[in-house]
Amino acid sequence: MSWKNEILKVAQKARQACHVLANLPTATKNAALEGMAEALMQSSSKLKKANAVDVSAARKAGLPAAMIDRLTLSDSVLQSMARSLKEVALLPDPVGEVSKMWQRPNGLWVGKMRIPLGVIGFIYESRPNVTSDAAGLCLKAGNAVILRGGSEAINSNLAIAEILQGVSQRHGIPGGAIQVIPTTSRQAVEEMLKLEEYIDVIIPRGGEELIRFVVSHSQIPVIKHYKGVCHVFVDASADLEMAQTISYNAKVQRPGVCNAMETLLVHRKIAWHFLPPMAAKFRAAGVELRGCPETRRILKSVKAAKEADWSAEYLDLILAVRVMAGLDEAMAHIIRYGSSHTDSIVTQDYTNAQRFLREVPSSTVLVNASTRFSDGFELGLGAEIGISTTKLHAFGPMGVEDLTTSKFIVYGSGQIRT
Amino acid sequence: MSWKNEILKVAQKARQACHVLANLPTATKNAALEGMAEALMQSSSKLKKANAVDVSAARKAGLPAAMIDRLTLSDSVLQSMARSLKEVALLPDPVGEVSKMWQRPNGLWVGKMRIPLGVIGFIYESRPNVTSDAAGLCLKAGNAVILRGGSEAINSNLAIAEILQGVSQRHGIPGGAIQVIPTTSRQAVEEMLKLEEYIDVIIPRGGEELIRFVVSHSQIPVIKHYKGVCHVFVDASADLEMAQTISYNAKVQRPGVCNAMETLLVHRKIAWHFLPPMAAKFRAAGVELRGCPETRRILKSVKAAKEADWSAEYLDLILAVRVMAGLDEAMAHIIRYGSSHTDSIVTQDYTNAQRFLREVPSSTVLVNASTRFSDGFELGLGAEIGISTTKLHAFGPMGVEDLTTSKFIVYGSGQIRT
Repeated sequence: MSWKNEILKVAQKARQACHVLANLPTATKNAALEGMAEALMQSSSKLKKANAVDVSAARKAGLPAAMIDRLTLSDSVLQSMARSLKEVALLPDPVGEVSKMWQRPNGLWVGKMRIPLGVIGFIYESRPNVTSDAAGLCLKAGNAVILRGGSEAINSNLAIAEILQGVSQRHGIPGGAIQVIPTTSRQAVEEMLKLEEYIDVIIPRGGEELIRFVVSHSQIPVIKHYKGVCHVFVDASADLEMAQTISYNAKVQRPGVCNAMETLLVHRKIAWHFLPPMAAKFRAAGVELRGCPETRRILKSVKAAKEADWSAEYLDLILAVRVMAGLDEAMAHIIRYGSSHTDSIVTQDYTNAQRFLREVPSSTVLVNASTRFSDGFELGLGAEIGISTTKLHAFGPMGVEDLTTSKFIVYGSGQIRT
Repeated sequence: MSWKNEILKVAQKARQACHVLANLPTATKNAALEGMAEALMQSSSKLKKANAVDVSAARKAGLPAAMIDRLTLSDSVLQSMARSLKEVALLPDPVGEVSKMWQRPNGLWVGKMRIPLGVIGFIYESRPNVTSDAAGLCLKAGNAVILRGGSEAINSNLAIAEILQGVSQRHGIPGGAIQVIPTTSRQAVEEMLKLEEYIDVIIPRGGEELIRFVVSHSQIPVIKHYKGVCHVFVDASADLEMAQTISYNAKVQRPGVCNAMETLLVHRKIAWHFLPPMAAKFRAAGVELRGCPETRRILKSVKAAKEADWSAEYLDLILAVRVMAGLDEAMAHIIRYGSSHTDSIVTQDYTNAQRFLREVPSSTVLVNASTRFSDGFELGLGAEIGISTTKLHAFGPMGVEDLTTSKFIVYGSGQIRT
């Protein structure tokens, strides 16, 4: 059988599962999620065996240590997978919620009711724990999911999915609810991206190259972000100690993620006070600074930033630093070079705080807090399936509710149009 | 200059206008909309002159009378364009609305704030009145719009846009806010669909062929519906007089639009009572019926429906009719053959009404009302830019609010992640 037919069968099976999934009682979904969490823990030796096949292949292929680390299903990773599923069980069920209702002059009652999106194609890279996270979130929102993980994790992903499927079928959930594409071929992804008739949305998560590949090949709507070029702007009125703490946290706490700061903007009026101690802290943490000419007059030994640095997503201990004339210049810089992801201002000025929140068109905008809070769990969504900078449908961290849509419901008593 | 550069310039100008547009005071937008309405009325002779060029070209090209009618800017069309702009001015401004706000255990206040989508590419067919409708809705929501109307209306569209631009510039609104692509070449559309960096969303409105062309060429997210295959299901418990009135209205009142009924589903228990008088009414209105075998046992002279009839969007006085064993079979038929657009049940049964509303995954689902109510104005949105069956972002008729997105705003007091 060709991959084309195989993928088509998977997609059709997912579509067929939709009607049952959309109407599952909340209690059934929650019981299945709890059961999945327990089954993962009980099957840890089986899962580790499948994972060992992937890990040894990755070693043979000479993958970097960081990647092998992310690929490995340790006890603590398995525990966190189980915990995530239990937490998703505790979240409110978005499906069926009627958020508002109003009456028309002709007597019609019109409302908006949340329903599942339908079939979600989820394309991601190495970590096998994402397999159970995504499956849990999609099930909670009443969607069928087609999972396409990294080729280096294929054995782990198939083993995880088998366990989740076993549990869900014991709860009367159709087999099409959770499926893993059983191949590592890229052609299979291309086939999947053509099936507009069966798949409602594609969510890719991974490096920019993967996401650009998906966007350029997909006939199906894609929710994504390419990268996170996040800024902290230290305003003239900032509490400088707070500004140091926030800037340090935003850059150093976890530099390899999309909500880490990549460019630090500093108001000219406080640059001479703020930058030297800040730079010393960054240097102690091994952060390489790249500065504008004004920054380099203050911090003599700093390397010159090039134009490309202002839009760079380093994902590393590197930071671009630029001195700004004020709020307007800082916002113009963010709009020009940023990625609409996450930006923060540190200020004690009421008007500047409000203007920054109102005018910066990024998916998460903060005052006096680290950019690292741009995360579904941290913002209170319970868990996240990803972060969108697409503006359409969801903008920012996406939780369970963003895996649903709203339809219009209308209660009439015989109304016709005239 | 090549079209490629021309389109790029238009898109860049739109993008540059965004920051100002997003932060325009509501009063400025409303004053501009009122001014545009008046300017259209005052310029009616100029507009009719430009329109006459299009109409005479259309006549020479032998376009059908219905199309020439839709192309013509009569006094009543101009009045309704002006009235629409005034109505949009009266709608609440969605921009800046904070729909909810909650506090996290660490003291962060998190909220969702509505902001404009940014730049909207609007691609549509013949009617020039759509030019001012779309421009008004996009301005109210704080977006820049790039308008690409039908080639047969190019002179009318350019003349309308010139008037709208003149008024908006007098109100300090940047020139990039409302632009018409000044060419009829299809290549220009293809260039536009590549400019992901400058355009946030494409909304096509027109025939299925146009929309498929846009979807298959666009790197930018598209909100659309291909077609409306709308159903009315007459349940066993229906008030048969109400069912007749609704079915007749859904099919006959305006058969050429996407929310007209294309298939009538009838419960077996009442088919012998309901169908003969209903068919007589339809025949009197010139409606051609195409029936399933059971329908044809009741209505002898009716033509046999083929498999393709169940998914046909006739947009004409033709109706497919099928007898159903009950609610489940009717919902299965709608899910299989429908277009997720609009479906209605006529019933007096409480449980069936609730199940139909809950389980039919279409963008508008009605009980005891005509499918013709699936329309932004009729549902109370004030006006509509189009109807989406994409499920993502908007599902169903789209009003001003659907021309915005929501960002996360966060008020902190020095919080960092640990």
